[in-house]
Amino acid sequence: MEYPSVLIEEAVKQISRLPGIGKKTALRLALHLLKQDELDTEQLSEALLKLRKDTKYCATCHIISHTTECECRTARTDQSTICVVEDTPDVIAIRNTGQYFGMFHVLGGVISPLDGIGPEDVKIDSLLHRVKESKGEIKEIILAISPTMEGDTTAFYITKKLKEFPVKVTSIARGIPIGGELEYTDEVTLGRSIISRREYTQG
Amino acid sequence: MEYPSVLIEEAVKQISRLPGIGKKTALRLALHLLKQDELDTEQLSEALLKLRKDTKYCATCHIISHTTECECRTARTDQSTICVVEDTPDVIAIRNTGQYFGMFHVLGGVISPLDGIGPEDVKIDSLLHRVKESKGEIKEIILAISPTMEGDTTAFYITKKLKEFPVKVTSIARGIPIGGELEYTDEVTLGRSIISRREYTQG
Repeated sequence: MEYPSVLIEEAVKQISRLPGIGKKTALRLALHLLKQDELDTEQLSEALLKLRKDTKYCATCHIISHTTECECRTARTDQSTICVVEDTPDVIAIRNTGQYFGMFHVLGGVISPLDGIGPEDVKIDSLLHRVKESKGEIKEIILAISPTMEGDTTAFYITKKLKEFPVKVTSIARGIPIGGELEYTDEVTLGRSIISRREYTQG
Repeated sequence: MEYPSVLIEEAVKQISRLPGIGKKTALRLALHLLKQDELDTEQLSEALLKLRKDTKYCATCHIISHTTECECRTARTDQSTICVVEDTPDVIAIRNTGQYFGMFHVLGGVISPLDGIGPEDVKIDSLLHRVKESKGEIKEIILAISPTMEGDTTAFYITKKLKEFPVKVTSIARGIPIGGELEYTDEVTLGRSIISRREYTQG
Protein backbone atom coordinates (compact mmCIF):
# COMPACT_ATOMS: atom_id res chain seq x y z
CA MET A 1 0.00 0.00 0.00
CA GLU A 2 1.22 3.49 -0.83
CA TYR A 3 0.67 6.17 1.78
CA PRO A 4 0.36 9.90 1.13
CA SER A 5 3.05 10.72 3.69
CA VAL A 6 6.06 8.99 5.26
CA LEU A 7 4.72 10.06 8.65
CA ILE A 8 1.55 8.04 8.10
CA GLU A 9 3.58 5.16 6.73
CA GLU A 10 5.79 5.04 9.82
CA ALA A 11 2.82 5.37 12.20
CA VAL A 12 0.96 2.55 10.40
CA LYS A 13 4.08 0.39 10.52
CA GLN A 14 4.50 0.90 14.26
CA ILE A 15 0.82 0.57 15.19
CA SER A 16 0.37 -2.59 13.11
CA ARG A 17 3.16 -4.30 15.08
CA LEU A 18 0.70 -4.52 17.97
CA PRO A 19 -1.06 -7.88 18.23
CA GLY A 20 -4.39 -8.15 16.41
CA ILE A 21 -4.00 -4.85 14.56
CA GLY A 22 -3.57 -4.98 10.79
CA LYS A 23 -2.53 -2.26 8.38
CA LYS A 24 -6.08 -1.11 7.67
CA THR A 25 -6.94 -0.71 11.35
CA ALA A 26 -3.60 0.98 11.95
CA LEU A 27 -4.36 3.49 9.20
CA ARG A 28 -7.80 4.13 10.66
CA LEU A 29 -6.27 4.77 14.10
CA ALA A 30 -3.57 7.04 12.66
CA LEU A 31 -6.12 9.12 10.76
CA HIS A 32 -8.25 9.29 13.89
CA LEU A 33 -5.36 10.79 15.85
CA LEU A 34 -4.85 13.37 13.11
CA LYS A 35 -8.43 14.55 13.55
CA GLN A 36 -8.18 14.80 17.31
CA ASP A 37 -6.55 17.43 19.44
CA GLU A 38 -2.76 17.30 19.55
CA LEU A 39 -2.95 16.89 23.33
CA ASP A 40 -4.70 13.51 22.93
CA THR A 41 -1.79 12.09 20.99
CA GLU A 42 0.68 13.55 23.48
CA GLN A 43 -1.13 11.91 26.38
CA LEU A 44 -1.31 8.57 24.58
CA SER A 45 2.32 8.70 23.60
CA GLU A 46 3.43 9.64 27.09
CA ALA A 47 1.27 7.00 28.77
CA LEU A 48 2.85 4.28 26.62
CA LEU A 49 6.39 5.49 27.25
CA LYS A 50 5.85 5.83 30.98
CA LEU A 51 4.23 2.42 31.16
CA ARG A 52 7.20 0.82 29.48
CA LYS A 53 9.91 2.75 31.29
CA ASP A 54 8.58 3.07 34.81
CA THR A 55 6.79 -0.22 35.34
CA LYS A 56 8.34 -2.28 38.07
CA TYR A 57 7.66 -5.81 39.17
CA CYS A 58 7.26 -6.77 42.81
CA ALA A 59 10.32 -8.81 43.79
CA THR A 60 8.18 -11.11 45.90
CA CYS A 61 5.03 -11.84 43.89
CA HIS A 62 6.12 -10.50 40.45
CA ILE A 63 2.95 -8.45 40.02
CA ILE A 64 3.25 -5.34 37.86
CA SER A 65 3.53 -2.29 40.06
CA HIS A 66 4.56 1.34 39.81
CA THR A 67 6.50 1.03 43.04
CA THR A 68 8.54 -1.82 44.46
CA GLU A 69 6.18 -1.74 47.44
CA CYS A 70 3.53 -4.13 46.28
CA GLU A 71 0.07 -4.83 47.64
CA CYS A 72 1.24 -8.28 48.77
CA ARG A 73 2.96 -6.57 51.72
CA THR A 74 0.04 -4.48 52.91
CA ALA A 75 -1.93 -5.28 56.03
CA ARG A 76 -5.23 -5.61 54.17
CA THR A 77 -3.89 -8.56 52.19
CA ASP A 78 -4.40 -11.96 53.79
CA GLN A 79 -0.87 -13.26 54.33
CA SER A 80 -1.85 -16.91 54.68
CA THR A 81 -2.87 -17.61 51.07
CA ILE A 82 -1.11 -17.33 47.74
CA CYS A 83 -3.02 -17.56 44.48
CA VAL A 84 -0.68 -18.75 41.72
CA VAL A 85 -1.50 -17.40 38.24
CA GLU A 86 0.10 -17.37 34.84
CA ASP A 87 0.07 -13.65 34.12
CA THR A 88 -1.13 -10.18 35.14
CA PRO A 89 -4.58 -10.23 33.46
CA ASP A 90 -5.41 -13.23 35.67
CA VAL A 91 -4.59 -11.15 38.77
CA ILE A 92 -6.88 -8.39 37.56
CA ALA A 93 -9.67 -10.87 36.77
CA ILE A 94 -9.45 -12.57 40.17
CA ARG A 95 -9.22 -9.27 42.07
CA ASN A 96 -12.30 -8.02 40.24
CA THR A 97 -14.38 -10.95 41.48
CA GLY A 98 -14.16 -9.46 44.97
CA GLN A 99 -13.91 -13.03 46.33
CA TYR A 100 -10.21 -13.23 47.05
CA PHE A 101 -8.19 -11.17 49.52
CA GLY A 102 -4.92 -13.05 49.70
CA MET A 103 -1.58 -12.68 47.97
CA PHE A 104 -0.72 -13.57 44.40
CA HIS A 105 2.22 -15.15 42.66
CA VAL A 106 2.66 -14.42 38.96
CA LEU A 107 4.55 -17.21 37.21
CA GLY A 108 5.06 -15.21 34.03
CA GLY A 109 4.21 -18.22 31.88
CA VAL A 110 3.65 -21.95 32.07
CA ILE A 111 5.93 -24.91 31.52
CA SER A 112 5.83 -25.77 27.83
CA PRO A 113 8.53 -28.23 26.70
CA LEU A 114 7.49 -27.83 23.05
CA ASP A 115 8.28 -24.10 23.23
CA GLY A 116 11.45 -24.76 25.18
CA ILE A 117 10.01 -23.30 28.41
CA GLY A 118 11.14 -25.38 31.35
CA PRO A 119 10.37 -25.09 35.09
CA GLU A 120 13.38 -22.79 35.55
CA ASP A 121 11.96 -20.25 33.05
CA VAL A 122 8.87 -19.53 35.14
CA LYS A 123 8.87 -18.20 38.67
CA ILE A 124 8.41 -21.51 40.48
CA ASP A 125 11.63 -21.43 42.51
CA SER A 126 10.63 -18.03 43.80
CA LEU A 127 7.27 -19.45 44.91
CA LEU A 128 8.95 -22.28 46.79
CA HIS A 129 11.27 -19.73 48.37
CA ARG A 130 8.30 -17.65 49.56
CA VAL A 131 6.64 -20.68 51.12
CA LYS A 132 9.86 -21.72 52.80
CA GLU A 133 10.66 -18.24 54.13
CA SER A 134 7.16 -17.76 55.53
CA LYS A 135 7.96 -20.40 58.18
CA GLY A 136 4.45 -21.78 58.18
CA GLU A 137 2.58 -18.47 57.90
CA ILE A 138 1.42 -19.42 54.40
CA LYS A 139 -1.27 -22.05 54.84
CA GLU A 140 -2.71 -22.49 51.35
CA ILE A 141 -1.57 -22.27 47.76
CA ILE A 142 -4.44 -21.86 45.28
CA LEU A 143 -3.49 -22.83 41.73
CA ALA A 144 -5.47 -20.68 39.26
CA ILE A 145 -3.83 -21.82 36.04
CA SER A 146 -5.63 -22.39 32.73
CA PRO A 147 -6.66 -26.05 32.27
CA THR A 148 -4.58 -26.56 29.13
CA MET A 149 -2.00 -29.27 28.67
CA GLU A 150 0.79 -26.83 29.64
CA GLY A 151 -1.22 -25.40 32.51
CA ASP A 152 -1.92 -28.84 33.93
CA THR A 153 1.75 -29.81 33.59
CA THR A 154 2.74 -26.67 35.49
CA ALA A 155 0.15 -27.29 38.21
CA PHE A 156 1.32 -30.88 38.57
CA TYR A 157 4.96 -29.80 38.83
CA ILE A 158 4.20 -27.15 41.45
CA THR A 159 2.08 -29.56 43.49
CA LYS A 160 4.92 -32.08 43.51
CA LYS A 161 7.47 -29.48 44.58
CA LEU A 162 5.23 -28.19 47.36
CA LYS A 163 4.82 -31.63 48.94
CA GLU A 164 7.77 -31.03 51.27
CA PHE A 165 6.10 -27.98 52.84
CA PRO A 166 3.20 -27.99 55.31
CA VAL A 167 0.79 -26.14 52.96
CA LYS A 168 -2.55 -27.13 51.50
CA VAL A 169 -2.51 -27.01 47.68
CA THR A 170 -5.87 -26.38 46.03
CA SER A 171 -7.08 -25.63 42.52
CA ILE A 172 -9.89 -23.30 41.50
CA ALA A 173 -13.02 -25.28 40.64
CA ARG A 174 -13.49 -26.52 37.10
CA GLY A 175 -17.07 -27.05 36.03
CA ILE A 176 -19.96 -25.66 34.13
CA PRO A 177 -19.88 -21.85 33.93
CA ILE A 178 -22.68 -20.02 35.74
CA GLY A 179 -25.44 -19.51 33.19
CA GLY A 180 -23.99 -22.23 30.94
CA GLU A 181 -26.26 -24.90 29.50
CA LEU A 182 -25.52 -28.51 30.41
CA GLU A 183 -26.38 -29.69 26.93
CA TYR A 184 -23.75 -27.51 25.26
CA THR A 185 -20.95 -28.14 27.74
CA ASP A 186 -18.09 -30.24 26.36
CA GLU A 187 -17.70 -33.80 27.68
CA VAL A 188 -14.45 -33.23 29.53
CA THR A 189 -15.81 -30.29 31.49
CA LEU A 190 -19.06 -32.10 32.21
CA GLY A 191 -17.14 -35.22 33.25
CA ARG A 192 -14.93 -33.24 35.63
CA SER A 193 -17.94 -31.43 37.04
CA ILE A 194 -19.47 -34.79 38.01
CA ILE A 195 -16.24 -36.05 39.58
CA SER A 196 -15.88 -32.78 41.52
CA ARG A 197 -19.54 -32.69 42.62
CA ARG A 198 -20.28 -31.00 45.95
CA GLU A 199 -22.83 -31.62 48.64
CA TYR A 200 -25.47 -28.90 48.99
CA THR A 201 -24.76 -26.88 52.10
CA GLN A 202 -27.37 -25.14 54.19
CA GLY A 203 -27.14 -21.43 54.67
CA MET B 1 -11.90 -2.52 36.79
CA GLU B 2 -9.00 -2.28 39.20
CA TYR B 3 -5.51 -2.30 37.73
CA PRO B 4 -2.34 -3.41 39.53
CA SER B 5 -0.56 -0.16 38.68
CA VAL B 6 -1.50 3.44 37.91
CA LEU B 7 0.79 3.23 34.87
CA ILE B 8 -1.29 0.44 33.39
CA GLU B 9 -4.47 2.27 34.32
CA GLU B 10 -3.36 5.42 32.50
CA ALA B 11 -2.14 3.46 29.45
CA VAL B 12 -5.44 1.56 29.25
CA LYS B 13 -7.37 4.81 29.59
CA GLN B 14 -5.45 6.45 26.75
CA ILE B 15 -5.39 3.44 24.42
CA SER B 16 -9.11 2.78 24.87
CA ARG B 17 -9.91 6.32 23.66
CA LEU B 18 -9.01 5.11 20.18
CA PRO B 19 -12.03 4.10 18.08
CA GLY B 20 -12.97 0.43 18.23
CA ILE B 21 -10.65 -0.37 21.13
CA GLY B 22 -12.25 -1.30 24.44
CA LYS B 23 -10.67 -1.61 27.88
CA LYS B 24 -9.90 -5.31 27.49
CA THR B 25 -8.12 -4.87 24.18
CA ALA B 26 -6.30 -1.84 25.58
CA LEU B 27 -5.08 -3.91 28.52
CA ARG B 28 -3.92 -6.65 26.18
CA LEU B 29 -1.99 -4.12 24.08
CA ALA B 30 -0.45 -2.50 27.17
CA LEU B 31 0.71 -5.85 28.54
CA HIS B 32 2.07 -6.73 25.11
CA LEU B 33 4.23 -3.60 25.12
CA LEU B 34 5.54 -4.50 28.57
CA LYS B 35 6.79 -7.83 27.23
CA GLN B 36 8.49 -6.31 24.20
CA ASP B 37 11.74 -4.47 23.97
CA GLU B 38 11.68 -0.91 25.30
CA LEU B 39 12.77 0.32 21.87
CA ASP B 40 9.51 -0.90 20.32
CA THR B 41 7.45 1.32 22.61
CA GLU B 42 9.80 4.24 21.99
CA GLN B 43 9.38 3.87 18.22
CA LEU B 44 5.61 3.59 18.47
CA SER B 45 5.36 6.55 20.78
CA GLU B 46 7.61 8.67 18.57
CA ALA B 47 5.82 7.71 15.35
CA LEU B 48 2.49 8.82 16.84
CA LEU B 49 3.86 12.11 18.11
CA LYS B 50 5.63 12.90 14.86
CA LEU B 51 2.54 12.00 12.85
CA ARG B 52 0.42 14.38 14.86
CA LYS B 53 2.92 17.22 15.10
CA ASP B 54 4.58 17.20 11.69
CA THR B 55 1.74 16.27 9.37
CA LYS B 56 0.91 19.02 6.93
CA TYR B 57 -1.93 19.37 4.48
CA CYS B 58 -1.40 20.46 0.91
CA ALA B 59 -2.87 23.96 0.57
CA THR B 60 -4.21 23.09 -2.88
CA CYS B 61 -5.65 19.59 -2.70
CA HIS B 62 -5.75 19.13 1.13
CA ILE B 63 -4.06 15.73 0.99
CA ILE B 64 -2.01 14.74 4.03
CA SER B 65 1.64 15.29 3.34
CA HIS B 66 4.88 15.59 5.25
CA THR B 67 5.87 18.61 3.19
CA THR B 68 3.82 21.44 1.78
CA GLU B 69 5.03 20.33 -1.65
CA CYS B 70 2.36 17.85 -2.55
CA GLU B 71 2.22 15.28 -5.32
CA CYS B 72 -0.50 17.34 -7.04
CA ARG B 73 2.23 19.71 -8.24
CA THR B 74 4.60 17.11 -9.65
CA ALA B 75 5.05 16.57 -13.37
CA ARG B 76 4.01 12.92 -13.23
CA THR B 77 0.54 13.90 -12.06
CA ASP B 78 -1.98 14.54 -14.84
CA GLN B 79 -2.95 18.20 -14.35
CA SER B 80 -6.18 17.99 -16.35
CA THR B 81 -8.24 15.85 -13.96
CA ILE B 82 -9.27 16.22 -10.33
CA CYS B 83 -10.75 13.31 -8.40
CA VAL B 84 -12.90 14.66 -5.55
CA VAL B 85 -13.01 12.42 -2.45
CA GLU B 86 -14.31 12.65 1.06
CA ASP B 87 -11.15 11.80 2.98
CA THR B 88 -7.57 10.51 2.90
CA PRO B 89 -8.30 6.74 2.93
CA ASP B 90 -10.20 7.25 -0.34
CA VAL B 91 -7.09 8.80 -1.91
CA ILE B 92 -5.02 5.81 -0.80
CA ALA B 93 -7.62 3.36 -2.12
CA ILE B 94 -7.87 5.06 -5.52
CA ARG B 95 -4.10 5.42 -5.87
CA ASN B 96 -3.68 1.74 -5.08
CA THR B 97 -5.91 0.75 -8.01
CA GLY B 98 -3.17 2.00 -10.35
CA GLN B 99 -5.94 3.27 -12.67
CA TYR B 100 -5.81 6.97 -11.89
CA PHE B 101 -2.94 9.37 -12.45
CA GLY B 102 -4.58 12.76 -11.98
CA MET B 103 -4.89 15.15 -9.06
CA PHE B 104 -7.07 14.77 -6.00
CA HIS B 105 -9.19 17.09 -3.93
CA VAL B 106 -9.96 16.05 -0.34
CA LEU B 107 -13.21 17.56 0.88
CA GLY B 108 -12.61 16.58 4.49
CA GLY B 109 -16.21 15.49 4.90
CA VAL B 110 -19.57 15.63 3.20
CA ILE B 111 -22.51 18.01 3.52
CA SER B 112 -24.74 16.73 6.29
CA PRO B 113 -27.43 19.19 7.43
CA LEU B 114 -28.50 16.86 10.27
CA ASP B 115 -25.00 17.04 11.77
CA GLY B 116 -24.79 20.75 11.12
CA ILE B 117 -22.21 20.39 8.34
CA GLY B 118 -22.96 22.83 5.54
CA PRO B 119 -21.24 23.42 2.17
CA GLU B 120 -18.93 25.99 3.80
CA ASP B 121 -17.60 23.37 6.25
CA VAL B 122 -16.14 21.17 3.53
CA LYS B 123 -13.51 22.24 1.02
CA ILE B 124 -15.87 23.00 -1.89
CA ASP B 125 -14.98 26.68 -2.31
CA SER B 126 -11.35 25.69 -2.57
CA LEU B 127 -12.25 23.22 -5.36
CA LEU B 128 -14.12 25.91 -7.30
CA HIS B 129 -11.14 28.22 -6.80
CA ARG B 130 -8.78 25.57 -8.25
CA VAL B 131 -10.98 25.09 -11.30
CA LYS B 132 -11.26 28.84 -11.82
CA GLU B 133 -7.52 29.50 -11.40
CA SER B 134 -6.56 26.71 -13.80
CA LYS B 135 -7.98 28.81 -16.66
CA GLY B 136 -9.25 25.83 -18.59
CA GLU B 137 -6.34 23.48 -17.88
CA ILE B 138 -8.56 21.31 -15.70
CA LYS B 139 -10.84 19.40 -18.07
CA GLU B 140 -12.61 16.90 -15.86
CA ILE B 141 -13.81 16.59 -12.27
CA ILE B 142 -14.41 12.98 -11.17
CA LEU B 143 -16.66 12.72 -8.13
CA ALA B 144 -15.68 9.67 -6.07
CA ILE B 145 -17.96 10.20 -3.11
CA SER B 146 -19.79 7.43 -1.21
CA PRO B 147 -23.35 6.89 -2.51
CA THR B 148 -25.00 7.74 0.78
CA MET B 149 -27.66 10.38 1.25
CA GLU B 150 -25.03 12.91 2.38
CA GLY B 151 -22.62 11.89 -0.34
CA ASP B 152 -25.25 12.30 -3.05
CA THR B 153 -26.24 15.69 -1.65
CA THR B 154 -22.60 16.79 -1.75
CA ALA B 155 -22.12 15.50 -5.30
CA PHE B 156 -25.29 17.28 -6.43
CA TYR B 157 -24.18 20.55 -4.82
CA ILE B 158 -20.71 20.38 -6.38
CA THR B 159 -22.14 19.56 -9.82
CA LYS B 160 -24.45 22.57 -9.60
CA LYS B 161 -21.62 24.90 -8.57
CA LEU B 162 -19.35 23.61 -11.35
CA LYS B 163 -21.93 24.37 -14.06
CA GLU B 164 -20.46 27.83 -14.66
CA PHE B 165 -17.02 26.39 -15.55
CA PRO B 166 -16.11 24.60 -18.79
CA VAL B 167 -15.33 21.26 -17.10
CA LYS B 168 -16.83 17.83 -17.55
CA VAL B 169 -18.18 16.46 -14.26
CA THR B 170 -18.26 12.67 -13.98
CA SER B 171 -18.97 10.18 -11.22
CA ILE B 172 -17.23 6.85 -10.64
CA ALA B 173 -19.42 3.98 -11.85
CA ARG B 174 -21.97 2.49 -9.49
CA GLY B 175 -22.91 -1.08 -10.19
CA ILE B 176 -22.41 -4.67 -9.24
CA PRO B 177 -18.98 -5.26 -7.69
CA ILE B 178 -16.61 -7.47 -9.69
CA GLY B 179 -17.18 -11.02 -8.46
CA GLY B 180 -20.54 -10.06 -6.99
CA GLU B 181 -23.57 -12.25 -7.59
CA LEU B 182 -26.56 -10.66 -9.37
CA GLU B 183 -28.99 -12.52 -7.19
CA TYR B 184 -27.63 -11.08 -3.95
CA THR B 185 -27.23 -7.49 -5.12
CA ASP B 186 -29.67 -5.04 -3.59
CA GLU B 187 -32.45 -3.64 -5.79
CA VAL B 188 -31.17 -0.06 -5.87
CA THR B 189 -27.70 -1.08 -7.05
CA LEU B 190 -29.13 -3.50 -9.58
CA GLY B 191 -31.58 -0.86 -10.81
CA ARG B 192 -28.82 1.70 -11.22
CA SER B 193 -26.61 -0.83 -12.99
CA ILE B 194 -29.36 -1.33 -15.60
CA ILE B 195 -29.87 2.41 -16.09
CA SER B 196 -26.10 2.93 -16.42
CA ARG B 197 -25.61 -0.03 -18.78
CA ARG B 198 -22.78 0.24 -21.29
CA GLU B 199 -22.35 -1.02 -24.82
CA TYR B 200 -19.70 -3.70 -25.25
CA THR B 201 -16.65 -2.23 -26.89
CA GLN B 202 -14.29 -4.15 -29.11
CA GLY B 203 -10.65 -4.42 -28.17
